[in-house]
Amino acid sequence: MTVRAAVAGASGYAGGEVLRLLLGHPEVEIGELTGNSNAGQSLGVLQPHLRALAERVLAPTSIERLAGHDVVFLALPHGQSAEVARELGPDVTVIDCGADFRLRDKADWEAFYGSPHAGAWPYGLPELPGGRDALRGSKRIAVPGCYPTAVSLALFPAYAAGLVEPEAVIVAASGTSGAGKAAKPHLLGSEVMGSMSPYGVGGVHRHTPEMIQNLSAVAGERVSVSFTPTLAPMPRGILATCSARTRPGVSAADARAAYEQALRDEPFVRLLPEGQWPATSAVYGANTALLQLAHDPAAGRLIVISAIDNLTKGTAGGAVQSMNVALGFPEGLGLSTAGVAP
Amino acid sequence: MTVRAAVAGASGYAGGEVLRLLLGHPEVEIGELTGNSNAGQSLGVLQPHLRALAERVLAPTSIERLAGHDVVFLALPHGQSAEVARELGPDVTVIDCGADFRLRDKADWEAFYGSPHAGAWPYGLPELPGGRDALRGSKRIAVPGCYPTAVSLALFPAYAAGLVEPEAVIVAASGTSGAGKAAKPHLLGSEVMGSMSPYGVGGVHRHTPEMIQNLSAVAGERVSVSFTPTLAPMPRGILATCSARTRPGVSAADARAAYEQALRDEPFVRLLPEGQWPATSAVYGANTALLQLAHDPAAGRLIVISAIDNLTKGTAGGAVQSMNVALGFPEGLGLSTAGVAP
Amino acid sequence: MTVRAAVAGASGYAGGEVLRLLLGHPEVEIGELTGNSNAGQSLGVLQPHLRALAERVLAPTSIERLAGHDVVFLALPHGQSAEVARELGPDVTVIDCGADFRLRDKADWEAFYGSPHAGAWPYGLPELPGGRDALRGSKRIAVPGCYPTAVSLALFPAYAAGLVEPEAVIVAASGTSGAGKAAKPHLLGSEVMGSMSPYGVGGVHRHTPEMIQNLSAVAGERVSVSFTPTLAPMPRGILATCSARTRPGVSAADARAAYEQALRDEPFVRLLPEGQWPATSAVYGANTALLQLAHDPAAGRLIVISAIDNLTKGTAGGAVQSMNVALGFPEGLGLSTAGVAP
Amino acid sequence: MTVRAAVAGASGYAGGEVLRLLLGHPEVEIGELTGNSNAGQSLGVLQPHLRALAERVLAPTSIERLAGHDVVFLALPHGQSAEVARELGPDVTVIDCGADFRLRDKADWEAFYGSPHAGAWPYGLPELPGGRDALRGSKRIAVPGCYPTAVSLALFPAYAAGLVEPEAVIVAASGTSGAGKAAKPHLLGSEVMGSMSPYGVGGVHRHTPEMIQNLSAVAGERVSVSFTPTLAPMPRGILATCSARTRPGVSAADARAAYEQALRDEPFVRLLPEGQWPATSAVYGANTALLQLAHDPAAGRLIVISAIDNLTKGTAGGAVQSMNVALGFPEGLGLSTAGVAP
Repeated sequence: MTVRAAVAGASGYAGGEVLRLLLGHPEVEIGELTGNSNAGQSLGVLQPHLRALAERVLAPTSIERLAGHDVVFLALPHGQSAEVARELGPDVTVIDCGADFRLRDKADWEAFYGSPHAGAWPYGLPELPGGRDALRGSKRIAVPGCYPTAVSLALFPAYAAGLVEPEAVIVAASGTSGAGKAAKPHLLGSEVMGSMSPYGVGGVHRHTPEMIQNLSAVAGERVSVSFTPTLAPMPRGILATCSARTRPGVSAADARAAYEQALRDEPFVRLLPEGQWPATSAVYGANTALLQLAHDPAAGRLIVISAIDNLTKGTAGGAVQSMNVALGFPEGLGLSTAGVAP
Repeated sequence: MTVRAAVAGASGYAGGEVLRLLLGHPEVEIGELTGNSNAGQSLGVLQPHLRALAERVLAPTSIERLAGHDVVFLALPHGQSAEVARELGPDVTVIDCGADFRLRDKADWEAFYGSPHAGAWPYGLPELPGGRDALRGSKRIAVPGCYPTAVSLALFPAYAAGLVEPEAVIVAASGTSGAGKAAKPHLLGSEVMGSMSPYGVGGVHRHTPEMIQNLSAVAGERVSVSFTPTLAPMPRGILATCSARTRPGVSAADARAAYEQALRDEPFVRLLPEGQWPATSAVYGANTALLQLAHDPAAGRLIVISAIDNLTKGTAGGAVQSMNVALGFPEGLGLSTAGVAP
Repeated sequence: MTVRAAVAGASGYAGGEVLRLLLGHPEVEIGELTGNSNAGQSLGVLQPHLRALAERVLAPTSIERLAGHDVVFLALPHGQSAEVARELGPDVTVIDCGADFRLRDKADWEAFYGSPHAGAWPYGLPELPGGRDALRGSKRIAVPGCYPTAVSLALFPAYAAGLVEPEAVIVAASGTSGAGKAAKPHLLGSEVMGSMSPYGVGGVHRHTPEMIQNLSAVAGERVSVSFTPTLAPMPRGILATCSARTRPGVSAADARAAYEQALRDEPFVRLLPEGQWPATSAVYGANTALLQLAHDPAAGRLIVISAIDNLTKGTAGGAVQSMNVALGFPEGLGLSTAGVAP
Repeated sequence: MTVRAAVAGASGYAGGEVLRLLLGHPEVEIGELTGNSNAGQSLGVLQPHLRALAERVLAPTSIERLAGHDVVFLALPHGQSAEVARELGPDVTVIDCGADFRLRDKADWEAFYGSPHAGAWPYGLPELPGGRDALRGSKRIAVPGCYPTAVSLALFPAYAAGLVEPEAVIVAASGTSGAGKAAKPHLLGSEVMGSMSPYGVGGVHRHTPEMIQNLSAVAGERVSVSFTPTLAPMPRGILATCSARTRPGVSAADARAAYEQALRDEPFVRLLPEGQWPATSAVYGANTALLQLAHDPAAGRLIVISAIDNLTKGTAGGAVQSMNVALGFPEGLGLSTAGVAP
């Protein structure tokens, strides 16, 4: 069963990565590609790495263009997905790479996004407990944020097994593509090469409530999250360092066993052998999340580190994986676990 | 027809890239993987980006291990391929990613490599005139050097059409993976990040006679090559800036027409639309070579610039493409024209 | 009063940075330069960026060579400083850039370094409470580790003012020069460019007890530290993200006031204006530490972020600054607060 | 004799580097700092690496603000310097970091800049034959372009000694700061990291006629230049690979002797010892140009490679060096030959 898929927002980084993956997906035919300010330009100019689409020209984003596809990927600025989804009707599988339908809590949404809450869709992280069930057959998918993907995969086994206290401290480094393709002075190569810098410090980053939502659901109690994102001098990748106090009596072996159990059958999340730590280079362009953990008895904390590609597993790969689950395709169809390294 | 392929030298950068591509090749089953100093170690440690092979363990390189495969890829240090190939026998398709069988001229070989000449095999650059014919059905393939790939693709149409004088000047920038995985102080990240530096200047780089061989064959006369390689602060990619004096009466339009004609049916070599220049990022992990040219009437030169991924089109991709031709598979099987960008 | 200074270990990154700073120090004349494996080589080859010393040749490290100087900088592998210092006698100002004399606790030393404890010298972080007094007139100085410098400067005002609980969680990203100049495969440019990776996770990094020592001294109680270092794709710089639970009743304004008070007269540590966050690029080659803080009321934590150059303020700059204090020079002599940016 | 210097265009990369150097210049007091779109903002925000100037606020660029200084550095967009210089009067030393007064040939100017020719000022490259004489006492200085600095220093000894034919082929790699601080999509970190790309190919880059002017003046005949600039993934630095056919009978030894002779007394231009090649990292933030050459007898060419920091020797350092010559200060005052490495 081949499906025809449109991509709205095909000129940005998320849209480009969706297209890169769809080009290798045996059951997807790429349909209409749309954009706003870049409408009328060719993909050859906008996404010069996608040679097979070089002759395709971006249409303006409109319901007319997107209708008639089996699947529509939305890679739009926040706030634009709700209307498009409504007009496309309930039979089209709509996969929103933006934030609009990620948060279930209206107050959280309003506090962090400052606009009316559009609701919540089934959440595109199949690895979370119950994640696949929620996605199977769904016609609407909210693709997780890149940081929440890295952090939720790193910590859900700990909260599922009750290993740690409900106060997580997370510091994550992201490649610059996470900040998008709009030209801003602080994102210039001259500024970012050779430099690490933080942003959105102190609980104000919009991905914070999404992490809290995911971890609290697994823990069965409210988990507080101190989240600090930093910008790293690399195009892609997230390295998330996550820690929390271990509950009394929890040992390193307990932790390891819980993670092995939780991840045993996951095709895209791997706990590395002891002694080996994840590097973002190992997941460059891959849909894999690599994990490793350590117990620090002196500090009384469990530290879990995950590495993902923010554009692949963190965005487009997660979207395609969730589409596969929703449509009944093999979950890994069109997705690679091989990174491009070195 | 599925073939079984072994890789000798599977712990290095070339071997790793061969494996990455073979993992996505529908007609290849990955057989034995061998190494020397790393024998006994798992691929999970040696090539952490190749998750699907993480449990595989490197065997010592030996004829016993390599025999019995349909195809053997050699990613060995210079000078080790001849003996392996001889012992494997004439029925095994042997694809040498090293230099041993690239040069037809004994004196060139001895001057640049300082060891006895082993001979020359069919040359794995299908795009050269007559290239595919030489490869079809061949049981031996000499994969071109990465620089000669970038340079020969950039200049062969000019020499085939008689556009330029037989004196080429080439300056190329390469990512550091071209220098291999052996730890040397000048290749440390601390040394290469933020720095450009030349090496092998003055006609002494071993890829020089290979370029001369390729271009002279096309030109039908001896072409001299001034070649300067430089090391660029990036893991992958070659940007080759190639120029030569235009012959009297040759116009920019003539040059463009000749290139369009020569590359019209090539699946992996693209002349970009006028005004667009190649960037190595657009071919990251792809088997594509992107070209653009300009005529400088004041200087009287044609400048042609090519971008490839040194490990893909420049090594492992070229090897797989040539294998496809040799074995009668579709030439692009298992190879992507989509780069991983940004 | 001009002093004559020798540098033992002049071929490494720490030694090179000491020399770069001494070249600009108006009261220091550079004397003997020594090394071990590189003895006999010229600085022009070993430190090609130090043109003014290009003709100087490294002598073998020996007491004979080092004796007779007013000041001796030791940039040696761990464990070699004690004997050198003993033999040099009490009149020579010995400044150890290594770890040998940093830790006051014998058990800590043995647990983390696995060798006999050599003792502790006055600690070269003048900004700590009492720091300058301990250094003034001292003939022995233990230069702090790069991470402890970044972390102690970030958190000492919080502990001095009793703002936070004695459990700090620290994640720091370091440029690759922190790992030294010895060629190791995982430090190759091909491996580190485009990649973030952790190491020494779980309380095992040797800088951990040094942080605990510094913060506990300021807090007046044992402070636990969960420290995770990560390797970032840049040659220099440390970005340290430090946090701890705020004590009841502590507000953002309290925290800001305490930091402004603590740092008011510090020439090399700056709390940035609200809204501006430190970037390592801003301190490239400078002796400055830039700080910013945020209070996260939902998570109940104070987050303090510091940026330093690991080789300058984190090693050689701290060494020269401490030498200035010890010898009675103006503290900032030969040190710049201007980074090389972009 | 201390002079007071203003900087117009203090928010850009060139202006920032001028300020970094002036902060270390013992005979310059920094006066007014002006900008256009950034007027009213503090240097602390605009140039966060210049801590000593953090409290200074940018004034709007106007004659009133600039008048009354001994020296005015102009780091303005092309075309704005002429009027400012005229109004400042003949007693002020005006140093133009822009292009307006570099070209002596009216037709060249109009062809490459498309605006009326403003004339030519003494050229701020003291190392060229007669360069210092032209600058001594001058109240107007045209600072060379960054590429022409690297190329002219590399090739002037060859043309002065008649070693090569008057057809130079140059390929240069530049760090991204050469493209300025204005936010453009193709200069985003996501785009430039991990990528090499050319621009201005085919003789159309504006620095081409400046190179021709310099080399022709030295050669005493018209020198043609084929110049290809490329953008490298690093913030700073230019590596220029320059070559030309050797004249009959010229040997490698001749070439080396000519360069040693020409550069013998130059404080900022060094021919490296044989076998050592320049790297841009070695001149990071330094005013040094490092050179090395090779003779390729097979190709019949002399290859000369130079490395500079485009912002230091290539812009601000050249400006300060020329100011020193013009005002009678020691030529190297406030300038360092020590790069910040690694």
